[in-house]
Amino acid sequence: MMKSIGIIGAGVAGLHLGLQLRQHGIATTIYTNRTPEEVADGRVMNSVAHMHVTLELEEDLGINHWTEDQYYYTHHYHYNGWGDQRTYQGSFAAPSRTLDYRIYLPRLMEDFTDRGGVIEYRDLGVADIQNLSEIHDLVVVSTGKGEIGAMFPKRADKSPYDRPQRKLAVGFWKGVERCDPNGVAVSVIPGVGELLAIPMWSFSGDVMALLFESVPGGPQEALTDQRYADDPEAYRRLTLNMLRDYHPTVFDRVDHDEFRLQSDKDILQGAFTPVMREDYARLPNGRFLLALGDVHLTMDPVQAQGANSTAYSARVVGDAIVEDDVFDERFMKKVASRRSERLEAANDWINTIIHTPTPPQIPALFSAMVDNQALVDEFTENFNHPIRQIDLLASEERVEAAVNRASA
Amino acid sequence: MMKSIGIIGAGVAGLHLGLQLRQHGIATTIYTNRTPEEVADGRVMNSVAHMHVTLELEEDLGINHWTEDQYYYTHHYHYNGWGDQRTYQGSFAAPSRTLDYRIYLPRLMEDFTDRGGVIEYRDLGVADIQNLSEIHDLVVVSTGKGEIGAMFPKRADKSPYDRPQRKLAVGFWKGVERCDPNGVAVSVIPGVGELLAIPMWSFSGDVMALLFESVPGGPQEALTDQRYADDPEAYRRLTLNMLRDYHPTVFDRVDHDEFRLQSDKDILQGAFTPVMREDYARLPNGRFLLALGDVHLTMDPVQAQGANSTAYSARVVGDAIVEDDVFDERFMKKVASRRSERLEAANDWINTIIHTPTPPQIPALFSAMVDNQALVDEFTENFNHPIRQIDLLASEERVEAAVNRASA
Repeated sequence: MMKSIGIIGAGVAGLHLGLQLRQHGIATTIYTNRTPEEVADGRVMNSVAHMHVTLELEEDLGINHWTEDQYYYTHHYHYNGWGDQRTYQGSFAAPSRTLDYRIYLPRLMEDFTDRGGVIEYRDLGVADIQNLSEIHDLVVVSTGKGEIGAMFPKRADKSPYDRPQRKLAVGFWKGVERCDPNGVAVSVIPGVGELLAIPMWSFSGDVMALLFESVPGGPQEALTDQRYADDPEAYRRLTLNMLRDYHPTVFDRVDHDEFRLQSDKDILQGAFTPVMREDYARLPNGRFLLALGDVHLTMDPVQAQGANSTAYSARVVGDAIVEDDVFDERFMKKVASRRSERLEAANDWINTIIHTPTPPQIPALFSAMVDNQALVDEFTENFNHPIRQIDLLASEERVEAAVNRASA
Repeated sequence: MMKSIGIIGAGVAGLHLGLQLRQHGIATTIYTNRTPEEVADGRVMNSVAHMHVTLELEEDLGINHWTEDQYYYTHHYHYNGWGDQRTYQGSFAAPSRTLDYRIYLPRLMEDFTDRGGVIEYRDLGVADIQNLSEIHDLVVVSTGKGEIGAMFPKRADKSPYDRPQRKLAVGFWKGVERCDPNGVAVSVIPGVGELLAIPMWSFSGDVMALLFESVPGGPQEALTDQRYADDPEAYRRLTLNMLRDYHPTVFDRVDHDEFRLQSDKDILQGAFTPVMREDYARLPNGRFLLALGDVHLTMDPVQAQGANSTAYSARVVGDAIVEDDVFDERFMKKVASRRSERLEAANDWINTIIHTPTPPQIPALFSAMVDNQALVDEFTENFNHPIRQIDLLASEERVEAAVNRASA
């Protein structure tokens, strides 16, 4: 049987899935409205880190083209904005990788077409997707806002928020020194929000992605509300002031003469409401669409789980497509069942972290990690293992058990 | 942290779980009301076959004491009660094992106590279980009819029947020749039911478990309704007549002089309604009970999935207990999520097979297997893989796809 799969979207979801399907010789078309050149020339999309579980998936796909040390980091450098001792660090069992998606995605698009995948450049609406469902045996929707996303109903049980919990701003800055060993700074300030300082590799080489996660109404939200393009120098000064006032361990690494963006496209400001949607939708013609990636699950980036969850989900979907020939409701439910535990764990973890007011076990955990190396290493490594992470931090009782276990 | 686990029931569910927990040094008490001697001296319990996926679990547990060839079989010998060509056979990738549970379970009880497990011999009611929930960190309920089973609500979505779909009778008979290679006869007669002739090892050595699965109201149900103990010789003659009339490939292997039970305890007659229950229950004291084995899922034995599903489920539960320290609702949901796909697949598969009227894809599949060796081998091997089996036979479209794939 010759299967034919259509994928809407050429992000990490669509490309990982498409590349896996091509490894199995399955006819696959990806639909997107941006060429590799447009992606490379566009605005920064995120500050994604790929944990080692994701790198293993990429090894399987044969797409880890970035093996030099400069792409990798091994540590989390924590700063708590309270208490006497505020700094501590955790380490990963194996390195994580960061790379500007404007480099990453175009290369994967090239890999995909090199392997016989077809990319069609089109704008698509709901009617187009219905037409595609009759051309392909299965259509997977991995991107699409507005009416396309709305085809998959929001899951009330896993979507606790009706508004953004953080205002976001991420810029790729020159002039912030890397830590040694290389690592991400995790700075947590009650009432203000978080800063993640992520060593990133971009067109200009070494940059620092400063991802400000700002509590709405708090003092840091100006970094989202004040538009960079309106006055780059004012925004630069505002950023320095925020670092000085709230994030001293990162501020101390700034070279003020060098501190700047390389391009107006190196910053992204905005906010969104986290949402988990149903796994699939039935079209009026009786065919099913499968949701993947952002269309299925959109999480706040505060713990770097978006791309890692998506890559995992793409693998589950790819394995199911390879093993099955019938893309009926049973197939949809099978995919939903297989990916639910891990995706829901990541979703619950992130939604616990960003909740206002902060659930009591979160500061308890961060306070306990200050002088408990086993615990902070476990928390760090669990960025690979969202199920273990939500097991660790879902409740006060669970944090207490984790502290006791790590102390033993 | 010292965990303490209580397990209600010393069947395959409770013993597999208890043995795994003892491998990890976890304090475990099994509660049962039957000593090993009483089990060994009791009535035949079932005609269970352990598929090779289950044998692998037993290897992990260090409990495969039965390695000689006499315990193993490799084939299914099919007979369809329709069509021109009626006989065909499928083979497993690796052998399955059969053994009288009156030998198997007492040996596992011995293993469990040898490894430091505690067995308490008691009758338990609901109030006792609530008390145990305050002594142990977790109580797992793996057996219990009536009010204990009823603590776990029936799942309407996975329990389609309100009465038995087959009347059952299984006896361990002398005088039925084994096939060569050794295997199970699967005889399917529309309107009558099924016979599975399972080569079994019992106290007297080689016996044949004849498991009659009779459609209620059909001609075979007398084997359930006519009590063996009332007139053993009449029952023996009735059995021979049923074999002669409906199951010729088994009848041809009968030595009439030798055909008899060894003991009045070598036969079990009855019927039950298949049911899938909720994974867990919350007690009035706020503690949770986890369901395992028959309390969780009771399936008709027509495709030998009960013990294999239970052993799998015990492993999932054991792994979760080993990895976690908090037995809250999150723990319960985690177990439910992990075991749902495979257990629901087995449940759906069996409930499809025993449905009246027979869904059209079932005779279509059995007719197609007559001259499609790849298909019958796939169907046979899938006794290890219920997810693949329900993928194969859930609908007419899926059977058609499987036939096409196996023909390619």
